Amino acid sequence: MESVKILDCTLRDGGYYTNWDFDEALVDSYLKSCESLPLDYLEIGYRSPVKSEYLGKYFYCPDSVLKAVRQVSAKKIAVLLNEKDVSLDDLEPLLGHCTDLIDLVRVAVNPVNFGRAVTLARGLKDMGYEVAFNVMYMSNWHKVDGFFDQLDQVNGLVDYFYLVDSFGGVYPDDVRSIVTQVKSKINSKVGFHGHNNMELGLINTLTAIEAGAEIVDATIRGMGRGAGNLKMELLLTCLSSKFGLEVDFNALGRVVAAYGPLQDMHQWGTNLPYMVSGANSLPQKDVMEWVSKRFYSMNSIVQALNNQSAGVEDNIKFNAFSPEKSYQSVLIIGGGPSASDHAAALNEWASKETDLCIVHASSKNANYYIDLNKDQFFCLVGNEGHRLEDQSAAGFDFVSKCILPPFPRKMGTYVPAELAEKSFELQKVQFTGKVKDSHTVLALQTAIELGARNIYLAGYDGYSGDAIRQVELEMANENETLFLNFMENHGTLTSLTPTKYESLSEISVYAKI
Amino acid sequence: MESVKILDCTLRDGGYYTNWDFDEALVDSYLKSCESLPLDYLEIGYRSPVKSEYLGKYFYCPDSVLKAVRQVSAKKIAVLLNEKDVSLDDLEPLLGHCTDLIDLVRVAVNPVNFGRAVTLARGLKDMGYEVAFNVMYMSNWHKVDGFFDQLDQVNGLVDYFYLVDSFGGVYPDDVRSIVTQVKSKINSKVGFHGHNNMELGLINTLTAIEAGAEIVDATIRGMGRGAGNLKMELLLTCLSSKFGLEVDFNALGRVVAAYGPLQDMHQWGTNLPYMVSGANSLPQKDVMEWVSKRFYSMNSIVQALNNQSAGVEDNIKFNAFSPEKSYQSVLIIGGGPSASDHAAALNEWASKETDLCIVHASSKNANYYIDLNKDQFFCLVGNEGHRLEDQSAAGFDFVSKCILPPFPRKMGTYVPAELAEKSFELQKVQFTGKVKDSHTVLALQTAIELGARNIYLAGYDGYSGDAIRQVELEMANENETLFLNFMENHGTLTSLTPTKYESLSEISVYAKI
Repeated sequence: MESVKILDCTLRDGGYYTNWDFDEALVDSYLKSCESLPLDYLEIGYRSPVKSEYLGKYFYCPDSVLKAVRQVSAKKIAVLLNEKDVSLDDLEPLLGHCTDLIDLVRVAVNPVNFGRAVTLARGLKDMGYEVAFNVMYMSNWHKVDGFFDQLDQVNGLVDYFYLVDSFGGVYPDDVRSIVTQVKSKINSKVGFHGHNNMELGLINTLTAIEAGAEIVDATIRGMGRGAGNLKMELLLTCLSSKFGLEVDFNALGRVVAAYGPLQDMHQWGTNLPYMVSGANSLPQKDVMEWVSKRFYSMNSIVQALNNQSAGVEDNIKFNAFSPEKSYQSVLIIGGGPSASDHAAALNEWASKETDLCIVHASSKNANYYIDLNKDQFFCLVGNEGHRLEDQSAAGFDFVSKCILPPFPRKMGTYVPAELAEKSFELQKVQFTGKVKDSHTVLALQTAIELGARNIYLAGYDGYSGDAIRQVELEMANENETLFLNFMENHGTLTSLTPTKYESLSEISVYAKI
Repeated sequence: MESVKILDCTLRDGGYYTNWDFDEALVDSYLKSCESLPLDYLEIGYRSPVKSEYLGKYFYCPDSVLKAVRQVSAKKIAVLLNEKDVSLDDLEPLLGHCTDLIDLVRVAVNPVNFGRAVTLARGLKDMGYEVAFNVMYMSNWHKVDGFFDQLDQVNGLVDYFYLVDSFGGVYPDDVRSIVTQVKSKINSKVGFHGHNNMELGLINTLTAIEAGAEIVDATIRGMGRGAGNLKMELLLTCLSSKFGLEVDFNALGRVVAAYGPLQDMHQWGTNLPYMVSGANSLPQKDVMEWVSKRFYSMNSIVQALNNQSAGVEDNIKFNAFSPEKSYQSVLIIGGGPSASDHAAALNEWASKETDLCIVHASSKNANYYIDLNKDQFFCLVGNEGHRLEDQSAAGFDFVSKCILPPFPRKMGTYVPAELAEKSFELQKVQFTGKVKDSHTVLALQTAIELGARNIYLAGYDGYSGDAIRQVELEMANENETLFLNFMENHGTLTSLTPTKYESLSEISVYAKI
């Protein structure tokens, strides 16, 4: 145990949740607490060629950032390179000038690109860095032709050769056997980077150490992509009680508390969808997107993952939505409280309009419109089929048609059996390229297909400035973008109920009745 | 694997967070979802002799409750008895009449009372029940004289003999060796009930199965005392992918989602304090109380646990608080926003009062009173020493004395070095027997010691009716009780700022300046 090194990569791996921007006070508190903890390396972020989207401070780690870290921290500093983004020619501009700021350069390696990564390692070693390989997808290495035979190329170039449990699905027995196998091939030190989908981060890491690994990763509160990592506080507490590692629990308590508000906001950690993806070795990227958005139920995500796991892309194909008639006006009803608060007025107004139909973006408020004698279309995205079922105590008679996103639907398809014959799918989404499967996209595209000239909204309340959860803000921003995309070619959107969306026009429903 | 049975004890073990009352709709949804899951037993709650405190529906499980469960569920039904609360004479009244409602009676057994438990088992077996022993503290069994030698007494009486990892600190190797040892002594089936302090619930359970255990426990979302249990969704997902166990993931997703709001409210699950208690085999009861109350920082809890682990009850003894003078009036300043919102008026009023001192129940608002030329006492409970330090950018000159709870202090003691000579401890708390170490207790007792005739409060705002977190409600209720206790013998308490506490009198600070 004495020779095992510990690397904390909270800022680098946690950045997946914050887009690599962190509050300065948090970083300061993090660095200061880490000074008192038995950590050997802090991985501060990535170094990366420029990408055409906004990525924050710790994705690029400019020199000024590293200098500021050096001033506070006496720990060895690491950065990560994504091999897929970095060519040999990039090395000099990215890392040619900062051996005084960076101690260890890690390279995230896809095992199929092993040869390219070795070339990078040679360049980095020549520059004078310590070099680590974080080789991903360890559960699939045995499927990569000749993977184990080429490993000896790292000797003399790579200081630490990491096994990365990318899917979070390996078990201790796998770890033991792969560490042993790797150690028989190379003389670099072996490392382990575990994920926590199955809550096996700790036991896999302990097993790796027992099998001879000499460096292991963890992050504060397990902050990291998807289900996250082994929790540093768990690792240190365990090593303290099991092997007498000296741990300053005041410092540990401080840094764990410091990340509390961020976890409340972003809610990383494992849950059923991540467990299913881990257990079946499915990539977490999709899952993280689905879980972060509120409108997919755990149910529909798990269903989608089971489809992936079984190799089923989608299970049902419906006829194309091609409406027999068009409507002058469409009222789109969202899931916000204003569509129930003002339901009486909205019903009164809608019933008087001669050429109007209803599009339910969400089924949440459907029950308030059951008695309205208008054509009513339901957007079935994510879990809406189940929700509609739960809502419709009175039956489905008021449903004219159900509209589904274009085939194939990643999240699978659920339509209540009684509505199968009334269900149709869109052929395309034409007004935006950003998102395909949100309630709002589906509702707006449906309005286009229905030929509407006047499009009204209700129950699109927007989120108040003090929304606690990041996902609410993101969904509000996404809707705002969709409204703007839509209005470029398809005219004004008018909200009949109070709304915080700035792009919407407003006319009170009470002014119209 | 085919022969391994699964028991869900969400209602029984989760009741530690809800005082064994659950929303009927939740129970219904739980029972219905469980029907579609590969579970063998549902443990619905306890059966217990009457206790002199309120405990909910599923702590007593009266026949009507069990009948209602039987109507919805075709699963085998289990209840738990606490051996320490139940004598042989209790069996007939508790369980003499309901073999049609209960299939399995489990007995929670302290290993030192093993003999008594065997007597109970004989009684239960005679009544016709399946019987299980849940034998606690498995990590300490080797310390109990002759424990393993007496085990064969269970043969023929006990269907399932459970190893319970009470502290949540055993490792897979321990599980393997103890299961093997037990199996060599008895012919009852062996079971395993794991806790999740160290996130070892899954691997310990898998290891138990591998070593020959034939029944295992889990709960939805791991709901259970302290850090909680192995998560049922994790167990089923793992067994599904590893051994092909058939799992209806729609039903699983539904029941996991159903318990989401309860987890948001009670926030069970592991965290640093539970990890420390698990790693060091300390009981979780204290930790659960400390974690549930907001006013202990993670830091001070971890410190207290480290003291326990090192056998240190407390580390510093201070002189007794015996004030040289008394004051006609005391203003107690709490941590609520009103003490900062109205600080100007409070300062103005206090500065004019001739015979008044300040007692800071919390340091949170201390900075607003730095320039007030009055004697100022600080209550240092839990983490307040650290908080005072953080608040006092301007130094500690305005601090007259610090008051600590009576020795010994379970949570340890922290006093900023500069204030050590100004720090004193109370000798007793006389006006209440309920709580010893809350801010409010300390402040009120200090006011008594200071001989005050008029006691004013500010910054005791109370919690709004829509407080989301259970702990806020509990703290508000606790304070209300303390105020009432105090006023029985020590006169009125008057709030100068807005308050939701009903027992407090109110006079606006603006009426007094």
